[in-house]
Order: sequence, then C-alpha cells, then structure tokens
Amino acid sequence: MSKGADSKAKTVAAAAALFRRRGYNGTGLHDILSAGGSPRGSLYFHFPKGKEEIGAAALSLAGDGVREAIAAAADASRSAVAFVTGIIRVMSANLESSNFSEGCPIATTALETAANSEVLRAAASNAFRSWEDEIRIGLERFGIKPKRAALTSPAILGVLEGALLLSRTHRSLEPMNRAEATVRLLLAPGAAA
Amino acid sequence: MSKGADSKAKTVAAAAALFRRRGYNGTGLHDILSAGGSPRGSLYFHFPKGKEEIGAAALSLAGDGVREAIAAAADASRSAVAFVTGIIRVMSANLESSNFSEGCPIATTALETAANSEVLRAAASNAFRSWEDEIRIGLERFGIKPKRAALTSPAILGVLEGALLLSRTHRSLEPMNRAEATVRLLLAPGAAA
Repeated sequence: MSKGADSKAKTVAAAAALFRRRGYNGTGLHDILSAGGSPRGSLYFHFPKGKEEIGAAALSLAGDGVREAIAAAADASRSAVAFVTGIIRVMSANLESSNFSEGCPIATTALETAANSEVLRAAASNAFRSWEDEIRIGLERFGIKPKRAALTSPAILGVLEGALLLSRTHRSLEPMNRAEATVRLLLAPGAAA
Repeated sequence: MSKGADSKAKTVAAAAALFRRRGYNGTGLHDILSAGGSPRGSLYFHFPKGKEEIGAAALSLAGDGVREAIAAAADASRSAVAFVTGIIRVMSANLESSNFSEGCPIATTALETAANSEVLRAAASNAFRSWEDEIRIGLERFGIKPKRAALTSPAILGVLEGALLLSRTHRSLEPMNRAEATVRLLLAPGAAA
C-alpha cells in the first residue's frame, strides 16, 4: 500500500472506531486526525468533501467488516440456528469486552443522520442491506427456502439491532439472550415470519 | 402553570422533539432556545447543569409519552396481538407522516451517550424499562402468564426498536411489517421465548 493510501485507510479506520463509540456528531475532525495519526493536510487531500465523505467511507468499511464476520459465522456453522446464534455470541463478546461501548458500528450514525444527510443515510442503508443479504445467503446454505430466507433475514437483523441498542443502554447482555430466543423462534420449523 | 414552569416545559418539549430527529449531539442549545421560544437566561435558571440536564428531562418526557401511548394501545385492544400490532401501527404512521424522520424518541440519544454520559444512559435505560413494564402489564391483561410476559415484553421492545432503526435508515415501512410478523410469532400460543 502506498503511503498515501495507508494514511487514507488509517483515517477511515480511526473514524469508524470513533463513530461506533460516540456517534458521528460526537466525533470531531480533530479526534479523527489524532486517532488516525495523519496530518491535517492529508485529510483534506483524501477527503475533499470533508467529514461527510469520511463518514460514508467509514460506514462502508464498518459494513464490509460486519458482512465478512457474518460470512465467517456461516463458514464456522453447521445449521441455521448455530449460524445466527454464533453471530449473537460474537456481538455479546464485543459488548462485554468493550464495557458495552462497542455495539453496532452503523446504528448510531444511521439514526443521527437519516433525516439530514442523504449520503450517510444511503451508506448506512447499503451496509444494513449487505448484512441482510449475507444472512439470507447463510440461511439458504443451511436449507432454508429462498422465499422464507428473504423474509427472515431482515427480521433477524432487526432483532439483533434492537438487542444491541438495549444492551448498550441497559449495560446488560440480557437483551442479547432474549434476541437469541427470538431468532430460535424465527428459525423454528414451520414458523411463518 | 406558572410562567416559569411553562417556559421550562416548553424548553424540554422542544429539546425532546429535536433530539428525536437529529440526536443529542446534533442539537445545539441555540436550536433548543429558538424552538422553545424561551430567553437564554431562563434556560440557565431552569437547567443550571446545562445541556445534560435538559437531555435527561427530555428523555424522561419522551419516555412518559411513549409509555402512555402503550397504555392507551392496551385500553383500545381486545387481545395481546391487537395490542402489540396497534403499537406498531402507530409507530408506522408516525414514520410515514414525518417522512421517516420521527422514529424512537430515545434511541438516537441513547446510542450517542451510552458510553460517555451516565446521566443520559440511565435516563434512556429508565425510559426503555418503563416501556418494557407497560408492555408486560398489557400482555398480562390479555391473559399471558406473568413469567412469559416478563420474558416476552423486552423481546418485543427489541424487535420494535430494531425495526424503527431499519425503517428510518431504509426509508421503508417494510421492517415494521417484518416486526409485526415477528411479534405474532412471539405471541403465538406455545411460543417458548
């Protein structure tokens, strides 16, 4: 990687980590610069449109990271239930090891910006869609019919997102345990969601 | 209501409405002042601890409003399914009429502040707990056994919160429709969540 590309990648990774913990509006450009270790000039060079452009790149990076983790969970599993509960357990471990500061890397920025930045709303929407897709692919791989997988995968993502929000707010893994019970119901044979 | 109490209530209501659309960090004190129509001096008089104190009062106000709406949905319903789908339909109507800018009045601030303001995290947690409680009371009223109602009510709140987040981000009511299907499963006789 060239020095310039490396500096750009470090800036985006630093931004993504900060947005996850504090949100988009709670993170200043100076926070991103000091966490990423890049000079101010490189920031304006790589992101001429400013913070919104960094935000979109950070959402895309975070989205890809989670999508890959979902695919890895499918690779490591032998059933649909093991696949989805595996995702939940990784999320729970992240919450616990970060003292409940690291939940969904997209949700905070998505809620903050949905009503006032179409660029960031669309980037967040694309990330969520890619996760819904990756969950759908995993479910089909374990024998769930395409039509049911297409309906169940966004329902599962909704359950996981709600649980991450409540877990962070209550500082408790109990919502994650409830989410696991809910996805077991969604995946039970004959469930009609 | 005295003039002072009226000015304080207007400030809190204006703050709650702004936090719902733009989040806590995206709302400045000047936005709250101009939306609430109160002079700057009255803000410092009523909220000597500043923005965090306004934030906690706004979360409490918004929390009470939703809790009352949940109780009203129970009063207007004749079954557990009608009760919860009634809540979902009110939420969907709010999303649609606000062009997807008005989702959960607590979630954005909760995610933004969970890792850095114990005052706001606790206020958000209290609001969510009061909703879980009000859902539990409604479920018991329609014949769901206390133990099951206690497990199912936070699961239902998680499903609703995840759906509100995805609906705002995708600008679509489809996640709300998925949520309705999921809560029907959670409330089906014999469901073991």
